[in-house]
This record gives sequence, C-alpha cells and structure tokens, in this order.
Amino acid sequence: MAFEPLPRVKESFRRITRQLEPPPRWLFGAGPSNVSPRVLQAMSTPTVGPLDPAFLPLVRETQDLLRYLFQTSNRFTLPISGTGSAAMEAAIANLVEPGDVVLVLVNGYFGERLCEVLRRYGADVRRLERPWGQVFSLQEIQAGLVDHRPAILALVHAETSTGAEQPLAEIGPLCRRYDALLVVDAVSSLGGVPLFTDEWAIDVVYGASQHCLSCPPGIAPLTMNERALDKVRRRQVPLSTWYFDTALLAQYWDPEIQSYHHTIPVNLLYALREALRMVAEEGLVERWQRHRTNAELLWLGLEDMRLECHVASPHRLATLTAVRVPEVVNGPAVVRFLLEHYNIEIADGLGTLKGRVWRMGLMGYNSRASNVMLLLKTLEDALRQARA
Amino acid sequence: MAFEPLPRVKESFRRITRQLEPPPRWLFGAGPSNVSPRVLQAMSTPTVGPLDPAFLPLVRETQDLLRYLFQTSNRFTLPISGTGSAAMEAAIANLVEPGDVVLVLVNGYFGERLCEVLRRYGADVRRLERPWGQVFSLQEIQAGLVDHRPAILALVHAETSTGAEQPLAEIGPLCRRYDALLVVDAVSSLGGVPLFTDEWAIDVVYGASQHCLSCPPGIAPLTMNERALDKVRRRQVPLSTWYFDTALLAQYWDPEIQSYHHTIPVNLLYALREALRMVAEEGLVERWQRHRTNAELLWLGLEDMRLECHVASPHRLATLTAVRVPEVVNGPAVVRFLLEHYNIEIADGLGTLKGRVWRMGLMGYNSRASNVMLLLKTLEDALRQARA
Repeated sequence: MAFEPLPRVKESFRRITRQLEPPPRWLFGAGPSNVSPRVLQAMSTPTVGPLDPAFLPLVRETQDLLRYLFQTSNRFTLPISGTGSAAMEAAIANLVEPGDVVLVLVNGYFGERLCEVLRRYGADVRRLERPWGQVFSLQEIQAGLVDHRPAILALVHAETSTGAEQPLAEIGPLCRRYDALLVVDAVSSLGGVPLFTDEWAIDVVYGASQHCLSCPPGIAPLTMNERALDKVRRRQVPLSTWYFDTALLAQYWDPEIQSYHHTIPVNLLYALREALRMVAEEGLVERWQRHRTNAELLWLGLEDMRLECHVASPHRLATLTAVRVPEVVNGPAVVRFLLEHYNIEIADGLGTLKGRVWRMGLMGYNSRASNVMLLLKTLEDALRQARA
Repeated sequence: MAFEPLPRVKESFRRITRQLEPPPRWLFGAGPSNVSPRVLQAMSTPTVGPLDPAFLPLVRETQDLLRYLFQTSNRFTLPISGTGSAAMEAAIANLVEPGDVVLVLVNGYFGERLCEVLRRYGADVRRLERPWGQVFSLQEIQAGLVDHRPAILALVHAETSTGAEQPLAEIGPLCRRYDALLVVDAVSSLGGVPLFTDEWAIDVVYGASQHCLSCPPGIAPLTMNERALDKVRRRQVPLSTWYFDTALLAQYWDPEIQSYHHTIPVNLLYALREALRMVAEEGLVERWQRHRTNAELLWLGLEDMRLECHVASPHRLATLTAVRVPEVVNGPAVVRFLLEHYNIEIADGLGTLKGRVWRMGLMGYNSRASNVMLLLKTLEDALRQARA
C-alpha cells in the first residue's frame, strides 16, 4: 500500500557525513576520563530489553556493586538515567520542599550550582562561604548548623572547579545532632578517594560515571537512606518530576516490584556494571591508594617545575589537581597547545578561576604512573613554548 | 602518604561477577529494538570531552541530521540526555505553567502518562477519550478545542500500547486556528512512519532513540519551534528544572554559545549520530516505505493464521502491531515460550490490554522481511504449543 499524498521531504539537512573517527585523546582534564577498553567493549554488547529475565540479574548485580562503591547497605541505591547533574537534580527535586532551609557549603563552582538548583526547587538557601580552593572546618559547619538550623546540609565532597577535598568523616554525626539531612555531591570523588556513606552517616550521595569510574557519561550513581526517603514520603507539596520521582523509580529498581517505569539506558548499564566490576576486582582501598600515589607523583613533578598547586596539601584532591598558571604564561594557550600537539586534554579553570589555573585530572583508568610522566613531560614542553 | 585512619571497608557487596554475556535476543517487542552493528561499533569509539573542538562538529552534524529526521528547520533541535520519558518531561516542564489548560487525546497507556506528567506540572488537564486502539477524528479534536480552548493540545502519534497511529497532518493548522500549541509524542513513530514537523505545523515533538532509530536508549530527540519557545520565555512562574531547562540547554546546543551546561552522554551521541547517518543514507521516504511494506507482510501472515489485529487497518501503525490473543490461548505463556525457545522478545499488552494482546514491533534495523518470516513461523509454533 502506498502512503496518502505526503508533503515533499526536505532534503536540506540530509548530509552524508563522514565515518566517526575522533582523535585519540588523553583525557587528563576535569572529566570525562578515558574509558577502559573493557568498559567500551561491554557497552557495545547487543542491547536486550530492560525487563528481560536475563537482564534483571545484571541490574541487581549493578546495584550491589554500587553498594560496595558507596559503602552502604541502602536499599535505594541505583543509577539515574542521566548524567551526574541529573542525579543532583533527582536528589534535590525529591528532598526539597518550598521553604526548606538548606545550608550549602560554597567554595567553588559546583557549590554555586547546588545553590542554583536548590533555589529553583524553592529552598531557602543559606550559604557558608570559603575562598575557592579552601575547605570548611567542623567548627564553621557546626556554627552554621546552629545559626540556620537547616533541614538539609548540602556540600561538594570534591570540588571539581578547585581540586579541594572537603573532610567528610565527622559532618554526618554533627548533622544528626542538629537534625539535618546531609547531602553529598561526590561527582569527582566517587571511586577515587575514600567515601563511607553509612559509616560517615551521609544521608544522600550522588556521583558520576565519567570521572573516577572511567565509564562514559549518561548514567549516574545515587544512594539515599531511609532517613532521607522518610523526608520525601512526608512531603506536603507533591513532587512535580515524574522522571526522577524516587517512588516511581523504585517500581523498576526494587527487586520486589521490577516493573516498567521508563526504559533505562541498557548499554550504559552494561558499561557501568563493567566499570564497577573493575572496582570490585581491584578493591576500594587499593583503588584509593592508587589515585593517591599517582597524585603525589604528579604533585612532586609539578613542584620540580616550580609550579604551585592551588589547594594546600592537606586538602588537595587526589583525583583532580588545580595548578596555578604562572604570571608570565597564557593559561588557555597551554591548554590548546597540549590538545593540538599531544592530543592531551587538560581543563582551564571554571568561574572565578578561569585562566588562572589548569585542572589536571587523573581519574579511574587514567590514574597510572605512565600518564603522570606523559603529562609532566608534555606540560614542560608546553611551558617552554609558552615562554619562548 | 598513607590515609588518615579510615573505617574498615565492608566487603559484603564486593561480588566477583561474571563476564557480561546476555542471550542473543531478537527484540520484536515494544522497544528497544535491536541495535545495528554499525551503531554499536560507533558507540564504543573512545570517549572525548563534550567541549573538544573535534567533538563539537559531530554535535552540529547530529543536530542537522535530527532536523532531517524531524523535517524541521527549528533551531532548538537536540537530543535530551535521558530516555524518551525524559524528553517528554523536558517538553512539559518547560511549556506548562500551573493552571494552563491542556487538552490530551487519551486512547492508550502513553496518553494516560501524558496526563499524569502534565498534572504534576500543574496543568488543568482536560481529556478527550477513545477506546484503546482507536484514533480521534478531526471533528472530535475541533470540538475539543472549541469546548476547552486549551493552551496546549498534547497527543501520542503512535500509541505504543495499542499500535494505533493518530492521523496528524491536519491537527496543527487547527491548533493554530484556536491558538493552541501542538505537542506530539513520537516515541514509536519517529523514523518509522511519516512525520513532517514544519509542514504539519507541529510545535513540539519528542521521540526515542531505541525504537525506530535502532540506537540504544538513553538519548532522546526533541524539537521545539519559536512559537513553543515563546511560551517558555513568557512564563510567569519560574522553571524548577535545571537539567531540562531549555534556556540552559541552549548554552551547550546553540552553536553560537557552545559552553558547559551538563556533560552530555558522549558515546550515546556517537551512537545516535551513526543511527541518524543510516537514516540519511537510506532516505526518509524509503525508510517509511520499508516499515510499511514489512508491516503489511506481517499483517498478511497474521491473517493467514486467523489472528486479528487490534487496530483497524486504516490506523494501524507500521512499526508496532497489537495482535489479539485468541480466547483459548494464554497470552503471557506465548511471550515466555518465544523468549525461552527462540530468544524472541514480543511484548505483552500494557494497562487494560495486559494479557489481551501481544505487541509486535519491527522497528528500524529490525524491519526486514526475514524477521517477519522468523516471527510468523515461531509464533505459529508457540500457538501450536499453547493449544496442545
């Protein structure tokens, strides 16, 4: 049967484009990091249906492997079908009701982003501020909790914009004392530096796949404990989001229901599962130690080159280092040189640090001694060019 | 340097799991469909940064190829970083303000879902209803527009729950006459049956990657024209969503800005681009015709087996066919038999049609004569078993 008379198809956008062949980049910037060949291969395994009886065991395994990664026994532990920002939005959209006082630790771009998203969901946002690159003391946080009595304290564990790591171990118990929920953005730390969700009494943590897990972006780990879910269940103002609604997500992710909500990104789940298998095979402590050891190797090399790290060493993040651009050097030109001459990506600063620092990430699969050497040597060349 | 004293890592979820090896399924259900080898291969190309100067041209090509697919010149044409449901939520979250009257054509599960999501965003939802499997006449729609004077008319082009195709060509001009925006859910039609966004005066269309494009799920095409974006710009009540905010999305997707918003799913973009290249190489008319021809072959075969399609032939969808389960047959048992014996996935009915129909999709890469033969022959065997 032919179609009814149809309009003429416009051919204007019918481009015949070239075979995909991106350059072989070294991703030593602020994420994504290079994906391990094992993960790329797993991702290209043929797709099956999200409710296939052969697929559901993989889903459960992935959730268990996420529990190992997060160090939690939270039942609600799952990957959100979107990037790290989607997991952030999922957490906030569910937890926050209009008027909730939320205290945010702001010492970088992603703390600012937390404020922005919280504000959109109606939170009464209160800020504690530190200069970009510094962290908050427990005393400051306690004073903030006393002053503002927030329903939620939100913070960024690893500030991707500055390379500072906020000490976390004692904040959770403090939040319990002041009856606040603790929400942690672990986008650049999860899988790269120590994080103990349960032991440190963190109520909500979200991360990203494309940083220390070396999995492509588009699927984002999230865990929430019962204390957090209770707040969601007690909401007076109903949720607007359907895609991120924790109660609806449980329809698929709870093994006792496992029915249809939305079609999850099957191949990214393959990829995430493989990345998490690699975490389990290596072991968390060994993985954290590897990131730390290679970061120290990098810091030593930078010191030898008389370059200064933006963050003082006790709070310097192992997964991402911000390096101050020397006064005589054009920062963005060095970024371009490394990309053009060596296929090496490092990141310019973000926000107030734009042009003032380089951000060098050695995350997940990329945290290897040979990569440190490659980065140091090519940076040396770039600086020589920049000064010539 | 060693870590500060840390809690002991809990090993309980540290499972050593098996190598990924899902069974080789034929995905003849309601989506996802089998992904073409070209697309799987493109997807496993090494990840690069979303702002890499070598990646941005691929982004622009993908947008152009989407414009060809949608048959639109809309500037705002992009893939949402999530599944089809995310694109639906993006459209609704941006367009709808509390109290907006939205008229929804409800003749299946996904029309109901539209109502649910619209309700969550505060719409004053008015429903036109038809039995599941039937479609709406232009007269009914006109009467609905006259009665309700909605700000938006929302409908599902291809009802994945019933296999009915809503005739679309004349609804857009009618909506213009009554000053309503037209929002079309094309999840199961985009790339498989004729759709002319501009020519048919459709203001907003969204689709999915995993149906007629044969790309893995997790990235979802969306296009909005200036008429729709004007409504977003004129909002009185500010948006809550940050992840789906059209103004923020434009930061990355507008070639004149192309700065950071969120990290887009790079490898899924590779996959979508490859799937869209295949559409452009084949040509839209040829592709629609292929779906139609193979669907007719299937319908003929079903008729030979004395099986009845749920939808009358003028409105029967070429990409997905709902077949009535004969009275003496256990529908879900046939679904299980095909999966267990032949690795063939077909879908049970959804909602009110659960157990009453089988849904058979031949979408994108799967729309081939050999697949029709395979499906018919194995179904014949399954029915023989079911009746034995």
